[in-house]
Amino acid sequence: MRVLVLGGDGYLGWPTALHLSRRGHEVGVVDSFARRQYDFEMGVDSLVPIATLQRRVHTWSKVSGLHIAPFIGDLTDATFVERTLAAFEPEAIVHFAEQRSAPYSMIDRSHAVYTQVNNVVGTLNLLYAIAEQDPSIHLVKLGTMGEYGTPNIDIEEGFIEITHKGRKDILPYPKQPGSFYHLSKVHDSHNIMFACRIWGLRATDLNQGIVYGQQTEETSLHPELATRFDYDGVFGTVLNRFCVQAVAGHPLTVYGQGSQIRGMLDIRDTLACIELAVTHPADKGEYRVFNQFTESFSLNELAGMVSDVYPGTVEISHIDNPRVERQEHYYRAAHTKLLDLGLVPHMLSGQTIEGLIHVAERYRDRIDPVAIKPTVQWRHTASTLATAGSEPAVPEAFGVGVETSATIGSAEG
Amino acid sequence: MRVLVLGGDGYLGWPTALHLSRRGHEVGVVDSFARRQYDFEMGVDSLVPIATLQRRVHTWSKVSGLHIAPFIGDLTDATFVERTLAAFEPEAIVHFAEQRSAPYSMIDRSHAVYTQVNNVVGTLNLLYAIAEQDPSIHLVKLGTMGEYGTPNIDIEEGFIEITHKGRKDILPYPKQPGSFYHLSKVHDSHNIMFACRIWGLRATDLNQGIVYGQQTEETSLHPELATRFDYDGVFGTVLNRFCVQAVAGHPLTVYGQGSQIRGMLDIRDTLACIELAVTHPADKGEYRVFNQFTESFSLNELAGMVSDVYPGTVEISHIDNPRVERQEHYYRAAHTKLLDLGLVPHMLSGQTIEGLIHVAERYRDRIDPVAIKPTVQWRHTASTLATAGSEPAVPEAFGVGVETSATIGSAEG
Repeated sequence: MRVLVLGGDGYLGWPTALHLSRRGHEVGVVDSFARRQYDFEMGVDSLVPIATLQRRVHTWSKVSGLHIAPFIGDLTDATFVERTLAAFEPEAIVHFAEQRSAPYSMIDRSHAVYTQVNNVVGTLNLLYAIAEQDPSIHLVKLGTMGEYGTPNIDIEEGFIEITHKGRKDILPYPKQPGSFYHLSKVHDSHNIMFACRIWGLRATDLNQGIVYGQQTEETSLHPELATRFDYDGVFGTVLNRFCVQAVAGHPLTVYGQGSQIRGMLDIRDTLACIELAVTHPADKGEYRVFNQFTESFSLNELAGMVSDVYPGTVEISHIDNPRVERQEHYYRAAHTKLLDLGLVPHMLSGQTIEGLIHVAERYRDRIDPVAIKPTVQWRHTASTLATAGSEPAVPEAFGVGVETSATIGSAEG
Repeated sequence: MRVLVLGGDGYLGWPTALHLSRRGHEVGVVDSFARRQYDFEMGVDSLVPIATLQRRVHTWSKVSGLHIAPFIGDLTDATFVERTLAAFEPEAIVHFAEQRSAPYSMIDRSHAVYTQVNNVVGTLNLLYAIAEQDPSIHLVKLGTMGEYGTPNIDIEEGFIEITHKGRKDILPYPKQPGSFYHLSKVHDSHNIMFACRIWGLRATDLNQGIVYGQQTEETSLHPELATRFDYDGVFGTVLNRFCVQAVAGHPLTVYGQGSQIRGMLDIRDTLACIELAVTHPADKGEYRVFNQFTESFSLNELAGMVSDVYPGTVEISHIDNPRVERQEHYYRAAHTKLLDLGLVPHMLSGQTIEGLIHVAERYRDRIDPVAIKPTVQWRHTASTLATAGSEPAVPEAFGVGVETSATIGSAEG
């Protein structure tokens, strides 16, 4: 199939593009490099060095003999979207191309507005371009399990049958997202559902859990095929960051009680799920939702597993939760639809954690301990980034944050 | 109380400002004149002539001895929002300042994107300014009954208790909005709910039905205090437009079967509801939802009532529905919370319809029959406005649309 991967230069987009290419699909990648720009803004970098997109594509061609077509531009530019679809003529579009960090969206007003406009407008432009050029294109869109929040009933896959005052209907599952980022995904979901209804588009909304891992079969083939590994307080996700913290000799800092539960999955399962969705398209006019995670863990369980596996001593430290979220909550979420399509999950094992620790050790000298601290506070309307405090102009602040409150533990990206 | 009315130059914003002023509140109005700009874009005008905002405020001062403070600017300009709140120091903010036409949002991609960005960003800027300056300000936000769609169960006021697999929770009512405009209101609702949760803001979301009527106690005091009366295919709402059609000698054109049911209310009840919400504020951290309508009617019932009341002959004609919506559907929506606060509704009567017909007759020579036709098609990604066909440069098209397919019947604004 001809598959266009939007956000194909990112943490998951790039390994997805490689995986689909290797599995025989004709792949194009679209990226604006917004993700690399956020690094410049925050003064941080991927723990694992990454090559330019052009270099990656070239190296993939040398290693595999397969071609991936790069398209450089931004989804908020409607003309670019239209021209790219017209040039590539995809049968399926995998859409990762959104600002995906909850803390980034909560920095201040301008980051909240940026996140919602960027994500919602990019997706609207895409929906219009699909409807106008070829409504049979299957849109595979990345959502998040964080759209649901933590209701006191079982979470279903996108829809729920409700019996109320003697009548019955199947309705969109109520959403209680926990950041302006998660809200942007809820907005997208509503917009996509509507576009399927009025224009007969076909879409799969993948409500993904938190992804861990850094290596896939394809990225391991050459150092220039490596994908990002984020450990900073804004873009780093919980398990990857715990492993870096252990290697850096920091306490594993858990937000609040640590009893918060999250759905999670291995990066290799992300690739498998995307391929299953692409090769089993939604029907014309169908908007379907898959919950894309394989296991649920509390933050405490994750910290405990890293502590058990790490060969040295690891301290676990509970810090004030920068987020506003329920700490003690019911959590049971359906995730059978991808299993029904044939997913065979990689369960989280000591070996997986050892692999992550190994990556962190290899690039130990690239760890910036200042960047680890989670400084974005949900209760504040404006936060200062941890890395802003290490400016040479403010020498009295240099290093202080690291010693007194180095923290980690964001449960969601 | 000090009340700031956003969108205070519009159809409902202006009469609300007058009403609150007369009832002893200290009132400021904010407007960017976006609504007047849409008229220029479409080449249409309010049936009833309206004065400039500056003139209106001046006339109100002469008639009542009361001052209304005007602030001219756009909510998407965060600095303007911050400065206006700092200058006026409101205790309550009534927020009408959004693009409020479903057909306008469905014209094409750029109008869909404009509607969602304008509405969502304006409201986000407002939430941040309230949180930063004074979280005790009560936000009274206009939503729409169209957020709910037409589920096969009773519609509740914002939240629903769901029992599922032996467990129970009260969750946000599932939304199935029917246009990119209605979607923008759903996005707003989710954003506001979240802001109340994390910052302790207090908000009332008024899911309003379709408003009919043009005169209120205050606007009737002087011709320069009149509010808009829209009858065109984009901004005109169903009952107001049926009355204009009857006067213009056109068939009352009903979309599809006409069995679609909508919640409706008298313009005077809008003012009463707003005042009830303002004088009974939500608690700190509370996000509450009131369904603001008083009666439900099908399009066929409304057309029949106008036909019964109009002294001449009226033809009723069913046309292909330009919208994508269920025509036969269950509809029962709760609306007791405003009654509990003391609302005494004006029920729709022959006398009300006579009043509307009287207004239409007085300004009969201002009716542009070309503008009535609903040309925005939900199933298309780009539509041409009815008024675009009457350009002098295309004489062969002039008038053709009027004779062959003059239509009316948009159920929602």
